[in-house]
Amino acid sequence: MFKEQFDNLRKNGALVHNITNYVTVNDVANVILACGASPIMSDDIDEVEEITSICGGLNINIGTLNQRTVSSMIAAGKKSNLLGHKVVLDPVGAGASTLRTAAAKSLLSEVKFDVIKGNISEIKTLATGSNTTCGVDANIKDAVTGENLESTVNFAKTFSKKAGSIIAITGEIDIVADSHRCFIIRNGLKEMGMITGTGCQLSGLITAFLIANPETPLRAAAAAVCAMGLAGETGYDNMQGDDGNSTYRNRIIDAIYNMNAETLEKGAKYEIM
Amino acid sequence: MFKEQFDNLRKNGALVHNITNYVTVNDVANVILACGASPIMSDDIDEVEEITSICGGLNINIGTLNQRTVSSMIAAGKKSNLLGHKVVLDPVGAGASTLRTAAAKSLLSEVKFDVIKGNISEIKTLATGSNTTCGVDANIKDAVTGENLESTVNFAKTFSKKAGSIIAITGEIDIVADSHRCFIIRNGLKEMGMITGTGCQLSGLITAFLIANPETPLRAAAAAVCAMGLAGETGYDNMQGDDGNSTYRNRIIDAIYNMNAETLEKGAKYEIM
Amino acid sequence: MFKEQFDNLRKNGALVHNITNYVTVNDVANVILACGASPIMSDDIDEVEEITSICGGLNINIGTLNQRTVSSMIAAGKKSNLLGHKVVLDPVGAGASTLRTAAAKSLLSEVKFDVIKGNISEIKTLATGSNTTCGVDANIKDAVTGENLESTVNFAKTFSKKAGSIIAITGEIDIVADSHRCFIIRNGLKEMGMITGTGCQLSGLITAFLIANPETPLRAAAAAVCAMGLAGETGYDNMQGDDGNSTYRNRIIDAIYNMNAETLEKGAKYEIM
Repeated sequence: MFKEQFDNLRKNGALVHNITNYVTVNDVANVILACGASPIMSDDIDEVEEITSICGGLNINIGTLNQRTVSSMIAAGKKSNLLGHKVVLDPVGAGASTLRTAAAKSLLSEVKFDVIKGNISEIKTLATGSNTTCGVDANIKDAVTGENLESTVNFAKTFSKKAGSIIAITGEIDIVADSHRCFIIRNGLKEMGMITGTGCQLSGLITAFLIANPETPLRAAAAAVCAMGLAGETGYDNMQGDDGNSTYRNRIIDAIYNMNAETLEKGAKYEIM
Repeated sequence: MFKEQFDNLRKNGALVHNITNYVTVNDVANVILACGASPIMSDDIDEVEEITSICGGLNINIGTLNQRTVSSMIAAGKKSNLLGHKVVLDPVGAGASTLRTAAAKSLLSEVKFDVIKGNISEIKTLATGSNTTCGVDANIKDAVTGENLESTVNFAKTFSKKAGSIIAITGEIDIVADSHRCFIIRNGLKEMGMITGTGCQLSGLITAFLIANPETPLRAAAAAVCAMGLAGETGYDNMQGDDGNSTYRNRIIDAIYNMNAETLEKGAKYEIM
Repeated sequence: MFKEQFDNLRKNGALVHNITNYVTVNDVANVILACGASPIMSDDIDEVEEITSICGGLNINIGTLNQRTVSSMIAAGKKSNLLGHKVVLDPVGAGASTLRTAAAKSLLSEVKFDVIKGNISEIKTLATGSNTTCGVDANIKDAVTGENLESTVNFAKTFSKKAGSIIAITGEIDIVADSHRCFIIRNGLKEMGMITGTGCQLSGLITAFLIANPETPLRAAAAAVCAMGLAGETGYDNMQGDDGNSTYRNRIIDAIYNMNAETLEKGAKYEIM
């Protein structure tokens, strides 16, 4: 299923404009390079429109937002929309502060996103105004489980329809939905949560996959989610004696670097609902 | 001695708000995850009070301070004080510029810190107004040695009494003192100085240990200092053929990840004075 | 040839002030430590002149510039000039946006640089006003090849004379020229482009080598370029089974850490033209 999406990315590349947080920015840049795309980071209001114009898509992440960068995000997002570029939102910590929730909502109202990717608490904050986020991690009460899977899929499809965006909800089970169809993805390991930035890296990957696959955005987003989860599995398999979370971080990016269309196809675990 | 402190942290976790520099922020986040806690980074004046309210403690590091972030540090620190949260100061480079010294002093006068952690030059700058810092490293003339150990311990106890904070002075010998008691810690290796950010990581660890051990702050801070030093030793033991400082960085965080209460207890080298 | 330059650096050290981007800043700090120097990062207008005064040189990198930091770069650069310190410019992405091109030109007109280091597109933007940069990577049409080598060398020498700076152009073949002489360097691997920040690291290394070798700036800059390329080769030789670009990043910095004057001398591949 995802072979074509990854082949397109490796073959055609993608230039990804990132306005992202300073915590995980280096890993985001390296994972974008690892998948065959190229990153550019730029957040000054005086250049974001120009920079985004030379790219194929824009990755907006509010992980360490401030007032200066929120304006840049909106300006770059609007310009990308005008140009028909792909735009992705990672509303890190939406619900954890009034500023983050307001910034995320303001972005949603001013910019059309191709994909919105977050944990269940962040997405619920955007969709319903509920406010259950704990810091930058999902509230355990919200977790997507076998039991509430169907209702969560319906929630994602409904929000997708309302927002006009593909909705990617990450967790033990990942959900990638448009208003009609939903990929249920079972790649990944809980140990990935012991590293900062795997979520931010995923948003970078999604943007790269979208750019390289303009006609199949749902598959492209789902392919990126599978690729990230599979890299988490492969990276974990490659762990040696005294490795811990810091080395695991490298091994995950390395796994994306060494992944190809065939290994992604073979390792992807998903169903469509 | 430190078994209980690490057990509490692994068992109960800790949510740590960090206002820190952009050089070592990723390593700080990963080491906080490695010890069993969770990090959140946030520095905008419009959200720091809210973010710090949902956390258990606050780690302030002035490594790449600017005027925008100094205000945020003070606002977050005051809010944390009001809420009775743990607050840690890492006055990176205090003494190296008027701005840093002034910011550190301003923080000291506006915020009550549970722990102040720095190298001897930074701590002397805060305590005495002397100004001997060389960049972000301690002045060699100030180094804590066997010869001046007793006087340095007395200095730390006196400053602790004056500041109302536990004082942690890092160097070849580490000193962690309140006004009555002092831990002299001999863990760690000089090779740790060949990596950027081991000091910043330590401040993150101290905050996590304090949050999980509200009743035993001196022991908690000393446990964090021992843990960081021990991780430096273990990480170095794990070095292979062509490893250098960049891989050593990963191995140290990995060592925290793989450390438990028993290995910390066994590896801690300290005396009380 | 370069033995003396590296020996001087290992023996005497160098304190490097960096005003650099937040994407690769951690790697820049670690590579500066790896070569035997010490980094300090500082970008606030209220302290950059003071910080640069205690250092031996200044490394300015516009990778994620904003209006706040451009002023700091100019102020620090002017102060460094006054003090006779070494100053290096890495005009990342010059040509990719009006802001970057203007900032780079403004820096050139206000500050005297000892070395300007960039890819061919960035350097052409500064030298000729042509605007062919694609994001932060060089335009393939500009690539330095065997065929256009002589004309590129002449271009570099001419621009060096005009700018009063050593010009370092990185690519498959690296060129380091003053107005009279040019080092043609054939170290390095194309795989280094799959990691973010090897160019930023090189600017840090160049600054460190310059500080430690005030009398032989052209050799010092060329030595740094050879060292970085050689580290790319050595790091690649040290790659194991499942390593990818993230681990490669560590292995390159590790290779600088383990490099000495003899191995640099032996591995350097260059001619003078």
